[in-house]
Amino acid sequence: MTSWTLAYDSFEPEEERLREALTSLGNGYFCTRGSFSWTEADDVHYPGTYTHGGFNRETTIMAGVPVLNEDLVNLPNWLLFEMRIEGEEAVGTDNVELLSYRHELDVRNAVLKRTLRIRDRAERETTVETRRFVSMAEKHLGAMKWKITPENWSGKLEIVSALDGRVTNRGVARYQDLEGRHLDAVATHTSSPDVVDTPGRDVIALEARTRQSRIYVAEAARTRVYGEGGQPVDVGRDLYRMEDYVHEVLSFEVEEKTPVRVEKMVAFYTSRDRAINEPLANAMKSVGRYGTFAEAFERHARAWDELWDLCDVQVPGNEEVQRLLRIHIYHILSVCSPHTADLDAGIPARGLNGEAYRGHIFWDELYIYPFLNFRLPKITRGALMYRYRRLGEARAAAKESGYRGAMFPWQSGSDGQEETQKVHLNPNSGKWEPDLSHNQRHINAAIFYNIWHYYQATGDLEFLLDNGAEMLLEITRFWASIAHFNPERDRYEIHGVMGPDEFHEKYPGAEEGGLNNNAYTNVMVAWMSETALEVLNLLPERRREALSAEIELSDDEIELWEDMSHKMFVPFHDDGIISQFEGYEDLEELDWDHYREKYGKIQRLDRILKAEGDDPDKYKLAKQPDVLMLFFLFPLEELERIFERLGYEFGPETLRKNVEYYEPRTTHGSTLSFVVHAHVLADFDPEASWEMYQTALNSDIGDVQGGTTSEGIHMGVMAGTLDLIQRGYMSSEIRDGVLHLDPKLRDKLEGLSFSMRFRETPMELSLEGNELTVVAQADGLNECVKVGVNGAVEELKAGEKHTFDV
Amino acid sequence: MTSWTLAYDSFEPEEERLREALTSLGNGYFCTRGSFSWTEADDVHYPGTYTHGGFNRETTIMAGVPVLNEDLVNLPNWLLFEMRIEGEEAVGTDNVELLSYRHELDVRNAVLKRTLRIRDRAERETTVETRRFVSMAEKHLGAMKWKITPENWSGKLEIVSALDGRVTNRGVARYQDLEGRHLDAVATHTSSPDVVDTPGRDVIALEARTRQSRIYVAEAARTRVYGEGGQPVDVGRDLYRMEDYVHEVLSFEVEEKTPVRVEKMVAFYTSRDRAINEPLANAMKSVGRYGTFAEAFERHARAWDELWDLCDVQVPGNEEVQRLLRIHIYHILSVCSPHTADLDAGIPARGLNGEAYRGHIFWDELYIYPFLNFRLPKITRGALMYRYRRLGEARAAAKESGYRGAMFPWQSGSDGQEETQKVHLNPNSGKWEPDLSHNQRHINAAIFYNIWHYYQATGDLEFLLDNGAEMLLEITRFWASIAHFNPERDRYEIHGVMGPDEFHEKYPGAEEGGLNNNAYTNVMVAWMSETALEVLNLLPERRREALSAEIELSDDEIELWEDMSHKMFVPFHDDGIISQFEGYEDLEELDWDHYREKYGKIQRLDRILKAEGDDPDKYKLAKQPDVLMLFFLFPLEELERIFERLGYEFGPETLRKNVEYYEPRTTHGSTLSFVVHAHVLADFDPEASWEMYQTALNSDIGDVQGGTTSEGIHMGVMAGTLDLIQRGYMSSEIRDGVLHLDPKLRDKLEGLSFSMRFRETPMELSLEGNELTVVAQADGLNECVKVGVNGAVEELKAGEKHTFDV
Repeated sequence: MTSWTLAYDSFEPEEERLREALTSLGNGYFCTRGSFSWTEADDVHYPGTYTHGGFNRETTIMAGVPVLNEDLVNLPNWLLFEMRIEGEEAVGTDNVELLSYRHELDVRNAVLKRTLRIRDRAERETTVETRRFVSMAEKHLGAMKWKITPENWSGKLEIVSALDGRVTNRGVARYQDLEGRHLDAVATHTSSPDVVDTPGRDVIALEARTRQSRIYVAEAARTRVYGEGGQPVDVGRDLYRMEDYVHEVLSFEVEEKTPVRVEKMVAFYTSRDRAINEPLANAMKSVGRYGTFAEAFERHARAWDELWDLCDVQVPGNEEVQRLLRIHIYHILSVCSPHTADLDAGIPARGLNGEAYRGHIFWDELYIYPFLNFRLPKITRGALMYRYRRLGEARAAAKESGYRGAMFPWQSGSDGQEETQKVHLNPNSGKWEPDLSHNQRHINAAIFYNIWHYYQATGDLEFLLDNGAEMLLEITRFWASIAHFNPERDRYEIHGVMGPDEFHEKYPGAEEGGLNNNAYTNVMVAWMSETALEVLNLLPERRREALSAEIELSDDEIELWEDMSHKMFVPFHDDGIISQFEGYEDLEELDWDHYREKYGKIQRLDRILKAEGDDPDKYKLAKQPDVLMLFFLFPLEELERIFERLGYEFGPETLRKNVEYYEPRTTHGSTLSFVVHAHVLADFDPEASWEMYQTALNSDIGDVQGGTTSEGIHMGVMAGTLDLIQRGYMSSEIRDGVLHLDPKLRDKLEGLSFSMRFRETPMELSLEGNELTVVAQADGLNECVKVGVNGAVEELKAGEKHTFDV
Repeated sequence: MTSWTLAYDSFEPEEERLREALTSLGNGYFCTRGSFSWTEADDVHYPGTYTHGGFNRETTIMAGVPVLNEDLVNLPNWLLFEMRIEGEEAVGTDNVELLSYRHELDVRNAVLKRTLRIRDRAERETTVETRRFVSMAEKHLGAMKWKITPENWSGKLEIVSALDGRVTNRGVARYQDLEGRHLDAVATHTSSPDVVDTPGRDVIALEARTRQSRIYVAEAARTRVYGEGGQPVDVGRDLYRMEDYVHEVLSFEVEEKTPVRVEKMVAFYTSRDRAINEPLANAMKSVGRYGTFAEAFERHARAWDELWDLCDVQVPGNEEVQRLLRIHIYHILSVCSPHTADLDAGIPARGLNGEAYRGHIFWDELYIYPFLNFRLPKITRGALMYRYRRLGEARAAAKESGYRGAMFPWQSGSDGQEETQKVHLNPNSGKWEPDLSHNQRHINAAIFYNIWHYYQATGDLEFLLDNGAEMLLEITRFWASIAHFNPERDRYEIHGVMGPDEFHEKYPGAEEGGLNNNAYTNVMVAWMSETALEVLNLLPERRREALSAEIELSDDEIELWEDMSHKMFVPFHDDGIISQFEGYEDLEELDWDHYREKYGKIQRLDRILKAEGDDPDKYKLAKQPDVLMLFFLFPLEELERIFERLGYEFGPETLRKNVEYYEPRTTHGSTLSFVVHAHVLADFDPEASWEMYQTALNSDIGDVQGGTTSEGIHMGVMAGTLDLIQRGYMSSEIRDGVLHLDPKLRDKLEGLSFSMRFRETPMELSLEGNELTVVAQADGLNECVKVGVNGAVEELKAGEKHTFDV
C-alpha cells in the first residue's frame, strides 16, 4: 500500500496544542482546528501555518444536514482519549516530558498517524502510536487505534475513552462573540452499565440534537484492548455519564516492552440518514457489528485506491507540484465523495475543514465542478440537485424582488433562502459595516454555467430533461426580467448588481447598492440567453411542451431571449478595454505604492480603505478578477463569437490588453484570483502564468492570506489548481461533442498523466515530449469518444489508443 | 381537460359514514378508510365494496418516512371541516335531511369531488360542492375547496377548519388490539392569534413527532373565503388550540342563491424532507405563498397530463377493461410517482391506501416494476436504491444466520432488518399461530430478478456499476452459502426454505420450518448463478477488480457459481411434473369439494384447516403459484434453456402439464395468483387466461377476498394487470438488446395502444387487426432501438415507424 505523507517531527509546541495532544491524544481540535508552526521534517518542509483540514471528515456526515440558518455544526467529539499510568493523574503537558513527537498525515490512505514517547515523573517511559480515519468505505464509521508500549515499566494502565457533546463552534476568531453552541444534549447511553466486561456490553453512546433544525445526532463507541498476537485483553470497565458527556475507563495490566493495542470504533448517525430505524438504535447496532481497526482500515484504504485511480494527476517532473496537487485531491475527496453525492449538500466554500462562512454555499462550485465532472460526475449531479431542490425558494426570491423566474441566493444554506449577512465586521476598524454582497446576482450565471458544463461533460440527458433544463430556463427568465431595454442605445441593460469583484458594491457616494452594466454579468447573460434557446431545441418535443406548460413559458419570452443574445450592452473604455462596469473608467487611480509600503499585505484593501474613512468604490481596484472571468470561463474563440454576435469588436489583442490592464489593479483578496490569473496568462505569458500557479498551489498550505487557512480550506482554489492542468494548460474544451485538447506549458508538465471520463468513457491522457497519448479504456460497454488535438479529430473505440503530435 | 370518473349517487348510507360525511365534510377517513356499498350511478356500476385508496396521497408524503418498526403512519388529519348555519350546531346526520349526494373520483385528474344538498330543521336548504387533491406538481401541497350555496336563505355561516394530530391506525380490524397511536403531539401554532383577519395572519399549523422514529411532521393550513367574482370575503376568525389539535372558525354573511367558495390550502413537511430549514417553519412559509385552489389544481392536472401521456394503456374495444386499467394506473401513480423516487421508500404491498401489512415491503415489486421499468424507470431505480441502502443490514442478517453475502428480509421496513411477525392471528380460530413465513428466502431471487430486468429495460449502466452489481453478487453469494452439495446426487440442494406458496411452511409434523429443494427457488438459483457470471463479464475491468476486492470475491466462489448453474437439484414427480418441493408428491390429496361446500370461500384454506385442528402442510394444495412462477417470470425458450443447462428434460408439454396439475390445487389465497395464472394460461388456453384476467382486474374493485380491499389496494395485482398486457399478451421480452414482441389474444385487445420506453427511447405501440405498429418518437437525441416481431427485427431511428405483420 502506497502512502503519501505530510509529516513533521519535534515541532516547537504551542503550549495549548501540546496539552491537548497529551491529555487528549485523539482530540479532533488538535488537528482540525489548530494553526501551528511547521518546522523541519523528514518528508516535507512547509513554512507557515496549516490546518489538517480534510481530517475533519466527521463533519462530512453532518453535510447531510443542510446546515440551515445555523452554522456548520461540529459533531460531538468522538476522539477524546486519556491515559493514566499506575493510577496517577492523566498524562498531560504539565506532568510528563515529551521525548519525541512525530505527526503524519498520509493523504494517499487518508489516515492520521502520530507517534510520541513520553517520560513521566516516575521516570517511566512510554511510547504511543496512534492512527485514525473516518472511513471512505463505510460512511458511518470512524476508527482510532493506539499502540501503547511501556518501555521500562510494568503495571496498571487506564484508558479513558469518551464521547463529548459539549462541542461548540469556536474555530473562527471573529465569530467568537456569536453563539457557538449548536447542539442540545439528549442523553447518553451505555451497554456496559457496570465494571464487568461482558462481551457486547462494551458500547457507550451519546445523542444530541441540533438546536435550530432539531436533527438528532447519535454516536456510539466501542473500545477494546488487544494484547500481543491480537487476543482480547480482559479489562475492568468503569463508567461516567452526564447528559452530554460519557466516558468509560478501561483498566488492565501491561508489561514492560509488551505493546497493547487499544481500538475505538465509532458509529455516527443522524436523523437525516436514510435506511435507519432511528439514529441511536442504528449507531449502537452498527458499532456492535464492526470488526477490528485493521479490517476497517483495509476497506477504507481500498475505497481510496479506487478514488485515486480515478482522480490522481501525475506530474513526475515536479515533486513539489505533485505533492500539492495530491494534497488538494485528498482534501476535495474528503469534502465531497461518492458518499456525499446522495446527501442534500452543496459544496461549502471552505470545505468541511473550518467554520469560516459557516458552511454556506457560494459560487465556488464554478471552480470545483470541472475537476469532478470528468471524474466523479455523480458528485456534481448531487450538488446540482442541491440547487434543484431549492428552485422553489429561488422562484419565491425572484417574485419577492419583483422579478420572474428563479433568483438563487448569493449565500445558500438550509432551504435555499438568502443567507448573506447584512452587516460585516471589519477587523481593521472593529466596526460593523453594511454588506451589500447579496447583489452578486452573477451566482445565477455560475449555476447556469455549471449545469450546462455538467451536461456537456457527461451527456446526462436524464438530468437535463428532469431537472437541468427547468433551472436553465428559469434562470434565463430571471435575467430577462432584471434586464431592461434601453431604446436610446438599442441595447439591454442590467442595473443594480455587483460583479465578482466585491470591492465595488455601489457607485461612490450612492445611496443604492449595485452597479450598472457589469460587463461580466452582461456578457454571461447574452451567452445564457443564447444557450437557453439551444436547450429548448435539445429537448424532445413532448418534454419541451410539458416543461413549457409547467413553467408557462411564452413565445414572447423566447423572442426576448433571442433578442438579448444579440443586444446585451457591454461597456468599454475609450481605449477598447472592457469596462468592469459602466463608469469604471471615471474612477480614480489608486496610489498602489503608498498602500503597499504602508500596509505590506493589501489583499483586503477594502478593509484598509474603509478603516481609513476612505471608500474602495472610488478607485480602479479589484479584489479579484471580474472582466477577466470571461477569459477564464470561455475559450477565446467562443468569447470572440459571443462578442461578434453582440456586435462588439474582439481582436487578437483583447485578451492581453485586458489582462495587462486589470491584473495590476487587483489585490488578489480572494485566493481564487490566482487561479483565474494563472489561467488567463497561460496563452501569452507562460512564465507569469506558472508563477501565479505556484502561488495558487501554495495558497492554503502556505496560508498566503495570513490566517484564513485555519478557518477552512479553499475548495475552489484547490480544485481550481487541478482544473488549471486540465482546462488551463491542456486547454481541454468540448465543441460539438468532441473533446479538444491543446497542451501548453509542456516543459513544466513533462510526463503529465491523468484520467478523465468523457461522456461515460474513461480515458487516460499522458504527455511526453511532443506527444499526447490518449487511451480509451477497454470497457466493453462504452461508446466511441472523439478527441481532437490541434484540429486533428480521432474517434477512439474502447481499448483504442492514439498518439497526437502537439 | 379530460376526466375519467368513478361516481355514485344516493347510496344507501351506512350511518357512521354518513355522519362523517356531514359533520366532517372533508374527513379523510370517509374516502380512504370506509368500505361502503356502491349502487347505481350515472357513470359506472360497481357492486361490492371499494376503498378510494389512491386518495390517501397525504400518506405518500410519509413515504419519505421509512416506517420503521412502527406501522405506516397516518399524517395528522388536514381534511376536517364543519359548517354551522346561523350559529346553530354543526351540520350533522342527526340534524339535517340529505336531499341528494354524489361522490366522484376523477382518476384522470386525481381529484375527489362531492356534491350534496341538505335541508336543516329550519327548512334552510344548502348545496355544498367539494373538491380536493394532493398535488402531483408540488409535493408539499394539498388543497380543498368548498362551494357553498344557500338555496333559500341568507344569514351567518361559520366554517370550522381544523388540523388534527389525534389520528391513529385503526383501518385494519384485526390489528385493533395493537397500539394504533404513532404520533406524539409537539405543538400547534397560528399566525392569526385573534379574530382580526389580518392578511398573512390566516395560517394555523400543527406539529407532531412519530413516537418511535422521532420524525417531526408539520402541517400548516390557510383557509380563505371568496365571494362571487372571486374577491376575498372579510371574515371573522376565532381560534381554538390544544396541543394536538387546532381549528379556526371563520364567520361571514351569506346571501340566498349566492355561492361562496372556501379554500383550504395545506402544506405538509417532515423532518426527513430535503431542502428545508425545519418542517414547521417551511410549512408555514410555503402555505403563505400558495396561490388559489384553481391555480394549484391547474398545475396538479398538468403534472398528471404528463404522467398519463407516459402511462396510459388504451383498450378501446373493451370499456370495462379500459376503465379498470386506468383505475389501476391512477392508483400506482398515486403510490409511486416521480416525487417518491427520491424518497428512501420501497413500494409497500398494499400501497399507501390502507394499513394492512403495516406498510412493509415484500416481494410485490416483482409484479410492479415491469410496468414502471418501461415508463418511469426513475421510480424503479429509487426503489432499488431502497434495497441498496439496506445491503449492509442484509449482509448482517446473512452473517447472523451463518450464511455469506446478503440475505434480504421477507418483510422490510425501517433499516431493512427482518420485520416478519413471529406469530399470526387466525381470525377463524381466534388463535395466535406460529408464523414461519420469514423462510421465504426467495425474496432474494425477486430482488435479483428486479435489478437485472431494470438494467435490461433501461441500459442504466451507472446503476449497475455503482449499486446493482454489488447486490447481484452478494445475493448470489448468499445462495451459494445456503446451498450445499449432495455428492450422492451430484447436485446442489437447498433445505429449510419456503416457496411463494405460504400454505406450506414445513413438512407435516416437522419440528423445523422450511422445506427441501423448493423447485422455484432452486431453478431461480441456477439462473442467478449463471447471470451473476454474466454480470461480472459486463463490468469494466477496473470496476470488476475494485468491486471484487471490496467484497472479497474469490475465484473459488466464481467456480462454485458456474457449477451451481449446471447442477442445482430440481425435484420431479414420477410423471414428469415439477415437484413444488422434494416430497410434495407424497402429500395427501385434499377433498376440495368438501371444503368448497362447507365453507364457500376457501381462499384461506390454511386458516380453515388450522381452525379445524388439521394442517395444510399435509396436503397437495397451494395458496398461490409456486412452480408456475417459473413460467410467469421466464419466456418458455429461456426456461427450456435453463432446464437444459441443468440437464433436465423440458418438453413442449411441460407448461401445459404443470399448469393443469397445479391450477386446480390452488386456492388463489393471494390475488397475485390470478395474475400469474392469466399469464401462464395465455399460451395455450386464451379463453381461460382472459377469464382469469377479468378476475385479476376486478379483484380490488370487486373486493374478491371479501374485505381486504378496504385494508389497502393490492399494488402487485394492479400493476400486474398492466404487465399482463405488456409482457403476457404482447409477449414483450428483451433478448440480446432487442425488444421482441409476439401479440396474443388479439381479438380481445383489438385497437390496443400504449407507450413504452426502451433504453431511453420512447415508443408508441399499437395493435390493429393483423398489424402491430411501432413508432420511435422523434426525440432527436435518442439511440436506435431494435424491435423484433416473430423473428423480423427492425432497427428504428428517432421518428421512424414500422408496421409488423402479426
